[in-house]
Amino acid sequence: MSYKKRKVLVTGGLGFIGSNLSLRLVEEGARVTIVDSAETGCGANPFNIEPVRDRVTLLPFDIGEPESFHDEVGQAEVIFNLAGEISHVHGMELPERDLAINTLAQLRFLLACRDHRPGVRIIYAGTRQVYGVPEYLPVDESHPVQPVDFNGVHKYAATMYHLMLSAGGEMDAVVLRLTNVYGPRMALDVPCQGFLSTFLRRLLHGQTLEVFGDGRQLRDPVFVDDVVDAMLAAGAVPRLASRSYNVGGPAALSLMEMAEIMSRETGVGPPALRPFPEGRKTIDIGSYYTDASLIEAELGWRPKTTFESGLRRTLAYYAQHRARYLDVDSPNPHCKLDHAEKGRRKMVFAAV
Amino acid sequence: MSYKKRKVLVTGGLGFIGSNLSLRLVEEGARVTIVDSAETGCGANPFNIEPVRDRVTLLPFDIGEPESFHDEVGQAEVIFNLAGEISHVHGMELPERDLAINTLAQLRFLLACRDHRPGVRIIYAGTRQVYGVPEYLPVDESHPVQPVDFNGVHKYAATMYHLMLSAGGEMDAVVLRLTNVYGPRMALDVPCQGFLSTFLRRLLHGQTLEVFGDGRQLRDPVFVDDVVDAMLAAGAVPRLASRSYNVGGPAALSLMEMAEIMSRETGVGPPALRPFPEGRKTIDIGSYYTDASLIEAELGWRPKTTFESGLRRTLAYYAQHRARYLDVDSPNPHCKLDHAEKGRRKMVFAAV
Repeated sequence: MSYKKRKVLVTGGLGFIGSNLSLRLVEEGARVTIVDSAETGCGANPFNIEPVRDRVTLLPFDIGEPESFHDEVGQAEVIFNLAGEISHVHGMELPERDLAINTLAQLRFLLACRDHRPGVRIIYAGTRQVYGVPEYLPVDESHPVQPVDFNGVHKYAATMYHLMLSAGGEMDAVVLRLTNVYGPRMALDVPCQGFLSTFLRRLLHGQTLEVFGDGRQLRDPVFVDDVVDAMLAAGAVPRLASRSYNVGGPAALSLMEMAEIMSRETGVGPPALRPFPEGRKTIDIGSYYTDASLIEAELGWRPKTTFESGLRRTLAYYAQHRARYLDVDSPNPHCKLDHAEKGRRKMVFAAV
Repeated sequence: MSYKKRKVLVTGGLGFIGSNLSLRLVEEGARVTIVDSAETGCGANPFNIEPVRDRVTLLPFDIGEPESFHDEVGQAEVIFNLAGEISHVHGMELPERDLAINTLAQLRFLLACRDHRPGVRIIYAGTRQVYGVPEYLPVDESHPVQPVDFNGVHKYAATMYHLMLSAGGEMDAVVLRLTNVYGPRMALDVPCQGFLSTFLRRLLHGQTLEVFGDGRQLRDPVFVDDVVDAMLAAGAVPRLASRSYNVGGPAALSLMEMAEIMSRETGVGPPALRPFPEGRKTIDIGSYYTDASLIEAELGWRPKTTFESGLRRTLAYYAQHRARYLDVDSPNPHCKLDHAEKGRRKMVFAAV
């Protein structure tokens, strides 16, 4: 299947992965509608889609209020469902907010998909976080699910919605469980978006990197263009052989190795080891890397970009657009999660 | 550990299992506080605890508003957490209500436990429903989790909260994944509480039984007194060897076998096979029975009551108290889920 002239809906299309995906979809000739409420703290940045701003439809709606865009759901040929809060730290601080964003809003959105576009192919951006502390490496799709934080629990509930509604024939969903993704358009000004965002932010400020723990924890970072390839493949295959695929990078590297490569590329001093900050240790999962053999066998996808190469492209992007990602006017409406949020997202029941 | 003089909190203590548990705890000399909001449709019935009404403290609060009973949480030595909606059919009709009751309310309650009684032993009434359609039989605790309905997704999210907070050392929870439970004090006047409730209701009305499908689906019904034994054991063991135990009955019987035994015991005519009603087939899970060897090995529990024996005790109870469970004044505030509920439980976000 080609995406040319296809009507595609991208939720969370102002975010890091969603914007890279939207740019590529426009390039491929798709008719792209983005739904993004630019929820504070979730990494949306209108600048991310500037290159295609005139060629996409942008709906500033929350997927938890899908009555605002029923028509667009009804017309979608493929839906890429990337809206959500990815910060594990935000989720631990404000679990009810995380439940609202990652589970309740997904429930409402998926029921709208079921009602207005039954059977539609949906690609959901899941996360390796649902596996928790790996029992074995590399982690394949059969690994037990045992999230260590609220964000993982809530993303897994949304994962189960997709799978359950697909098993019932009401939609045709596929879940990509993503490892750490990096690349251009990553939010750098939002705290707690993962260590790669933090590392890049520090590098752009000329600061040396700090690695928590002993620095030996392994990760398999995957470049965003490779993730976009995986999503496009999952959206285009006529008949899905599986409904869950792990998506990882080309190699496992230790946090210290990555910090060293990043420091070398940018000329800052060598990285330093630091003890885990209070409260972070319990949500650390040790080493993780992906067994991506299922998606390779069934969708022909594999990561192409080495960490060094992806990093250079990332640094080149931020060198050019630094002002759009760092030191943005404060208070920054698209990125800071402050204490006012704590009260605002408490759920209540409406009277009839 | 003995329960004598222990302060015990039971959520959902007006319900079927919760009330049987509360009666036994009183018998064992515990100081029992029941928290139960008597949520419409969830099976609470004040008559259930009549024999001990003067010997328990009854707090008419929703566990989703734990600020109403912080002090009692803070004093609890053991918490039996049974509050919830068990109907799969209600969950499919009103998924957002099910999310509010089974996930959001549990989140708030568990955070209150963490804050006011860190490290407390909590026994959570989980469900076999989280396993979905069995991949093998009997089903042990390692079976993949793949719920087929919203109730299963939401109960599993609450299960993950218990496990995750326990892994982090913030509580000491154990999840009992219960198969079909039956016995005295089961709600019979609430639609959609499972086939055993429906069968009993029909029998008490002198109606013949109807079995959906081919009647060959296996289940392993467990008598409520046996479940109470399992809960007491899980609450009393000084150190938990595991955090999840499957709890099942002594034998696997087909739906038709059970219907035949029940019809024979009550003298109604032979049961009839009926096709699945619209919408029910997708949430049917085929055959299920439990591998309960882990709880036997680690907690010394096994089911003692045969189906025939438990059934006779159940029928004797309802013969005596029929008017409290059937044909209760309509509209019945403690059991009917009507359309007004559909709007009432919609979640919204409160302003600061």
